[in-house]
Amino acid sequence: MGRVESVKTYNFGAGPAMLPREVMRQAQRELLDYRGTGISVLEMSHRSDTFREIAHQAMADLRQLYAVSEADYAIVFAQGGATQQFVQVPMNLSRRNDVVAYVDSGHWSQRAISLARELRSVTVVASASSCEYHDVPAIEDWRDYSSAPYIHYTPNETIQGLEFQQVPDAGAVPVVADMSSCILSQPLPLSRFGLIYAGAQKNLGPSGMAVIIIRRDLVDRLDPSVPSIFRYKDQFVADSMLNTPPTFAWYLVALTLSWVRRQGGLKEMDRRAKERSALIYSAIDGSGGFYGNRVSKRARSRMNIPFHLADSGLEKTFLQMATERGLKQLEGHRAVGGLRASLYNAMEVEGAKELANFMTEFAQRYG
Amino acid sequence: MGRVESVKTYNFGAGPAMLPREVMRQAQRELLDYRGTGISVLEMSHRSDTFREIAHQAMADLRQLYAVSEADYAIVFAQGGATQQFVQVPMNLSRRNDVVAYVDSGHWSQRAISLARELRSVTVVASASSCEYHDVPAIEDWRDYSSAPYIHYTPNETIQGLEFQQVPDAGAVPVVADMSSCILSQPLPLSRFGLIYAGAQKNLGPSGMAVIIIRRDLVDRLDPSVPSIFRYKDQFVADSMLNTPPTFAWYLVALTLSWVRRQGGLKEMDRRAKERSALIYSAIDGSGGFYGNRVSKRARSRMNIPFHLADSGLEKTFLQMATERGLKQLEGHRAVGGLRASLYNAMEVEGAKELANFMTEFAQRYG
Repeated sequence: MGRVESVKTYNFGAGPAMLPREVMRQAQRELLDYRGTGISVLEMSHRSDTFREIAHQAMADLRQLYAVSEADYAIVFAQGGATQQFVQVPMNLSRRNDVVAYVDSGHWSQRAISLARELRSVTVVASASSCEYHDVPAIEDWRDYSSAPYIHYTPNETIQGLEFQQVPDAGAVPVVADMSSCILSQPLPLSRFGLIYAGAQKNLGPSGMAVIIIRRDLVDRLDPSVPSIFRYKDQFVADSMLNTPPTFAWYLVALTLSWVRRQGGLKEMDRRAKERSALIYSAIDGSGGFYGNRVSKRARSRMNIPFHLADSGLEKTFLQMATERGLKQLEGHRAVGGLRASLYNAMEVEGAKELANFMTEFAQRYG
Repeated sequence: MGRVESVKTYNFGAGPAMLPREVMRQAQRELLDYRGTGISVLEMSHRSDTFREIAHQAMADLRQLYAVSEADYAIVFAQGGATQQFVQVPMNLSRRNDVVAYVDSGHWSQRAISLARELRSVTVVASASSCEYHDVPAIEDWRDYSSAPYIHYTPNETIQGLEFQQVPDAGAVPVVADMSSCILSQPLPLSRFGLIYAGAQKNLGPSGMAVIIIRRDLVDRLDPSVPSIFRYKDQFVADSMLNTPPTFAWYLVALTLSWVRRQGGLKEMDRRAKERSALIYSAIDGSGGFYGNRVSKRARSRMNIPFHLADSGLEKTFLQMATERGLKQLEGHRAVGGLRASLYNAMEVEGAKELANFMTEFAQRYG
């Protein structure tokens, strides 16, 4: 397969997704010998000074990027991905007889709801099902959740390609958000959130790690039957090293956070996300119906753009030709089919241009 | 620190521990472009054919190495390390009112006991405390556990440096073993075990992953209140991809398993483990008391050798000179102090020779 080496590759996979090229090259350079220590980060005690420095730098960079104050919020790095958070959130933030409140905006909120239901009663206060998941449920229409211990929503849905353009202001009820697919992609009024969490494998690093930012006063609300290793408080007190953490994933998250800072931080990430996604939406909208995207314009995701061809019989050819051009992993999610371009932080604007150009050329040839 | 580059480094850390050099070099070579795919394993969908092939090959190699039959045992790759297994084992293999049986042979069995106690009543049927953890509790002296849903023990204790030389035969009671620090280090009569588990970061790969081999009939014994993501059955049915797995860790485990097979399998790993550890124990025993190891000879670990200097004031000098010689991470565990050499599969016999020679020279100079 050496023939593809001369083509620059752009990876549009939804996750595990591409990492910044600089991060990948640095990881490769340092893989056998981390900065003169003679050993790899992979082979280093998590309690060594060298690793602790990596770990603390990552946390400090995350704090800096979101302007998270030490006094108000705790940061936890955990294993198990976002899915384990679907369980840890109700475990930690509610009691056995509480009714927890969720918003259904698509596949990932449904997963969160379904796992929460294994532990608690769940009330779904709004659902995008009424508009067949072509729009998000407007925040002003969410039913009353004022007696719930928290309200959970998914700001970006990777499969439906939906994104909330506003952040809810829930007053006294802590807002919990699964930011797996949009963390680090724009500045955030963090004070409106009780807890945000994200699996790392889209905007943060590789799979196998989750990042949690949690308001300190919530850390103490705890069902005492929760096993200690699933308690945010215990994880936080132990500096996220209750047991051996996924050290290499943590290191890659550290490299990625440092890269985001060097690139200009969250404002710049947002600017690029808008530029990238506008290129693809333009190619769709300008195709005269050759390409389609069913999402209401006000809810279009900057991160994940599902689209289809009017003639679905051409999708195979599209994917094959795209792959030959170095435009990879454009298959739609197996649940919905079609095509999908995921455009996380690591995707260069150049990659979105390449894809948009290819889409236009393909439409001209086959349209 | 470029000056140390010419010295060959041997990493005696207890974990995350060194990986085979061949594995590390291959990982570095393939990091930016996995075998002509144009993308990294780090950036690959876990549902892609390429990753599935890596994943299945790892499971197949593990089966082959332990001669595990598909009919009798299931294999699960999980997140959360061995510590999460301390919780998942009682969750999955016992019911709320059961009394589960544990053997206390040191630090890690105590951790397992303490986490099991958060969920269940625990009876400790034998403890090495009576001999101050200088010997393992002889299997024939374990108190009756015939009514327990399982009996849990830790075949190798990394901190105390104790290793069971025999495998218990518990009849109808499933034996559960935390093999984190001895998996793949010798052939095993697997049929005597109900479940074995291991955090990857010693003999299997990097941190962030655990491997579980479980007898199929046990997979069904389940407390229905267990959240689905913690159920072995659900994990197994989903091919260990209930959610996005730690793909890069899985890949490194695959490379390591393949390396073990190429080296000659578990018999050869055992032979090397004995050769390596004999070199260090000889250096200790032949030092006329300059070095000491408190473990009874019949319970000495092949994997982790804690030792101390009669003159503890020399330890700092020892560590400093060792590090200069490329002999790294020899500090004892912070709970017990002193020194420790961990000698997992990836440690070349040459490394143990280097350390033994250094120990003898050091004793001659300062003794």
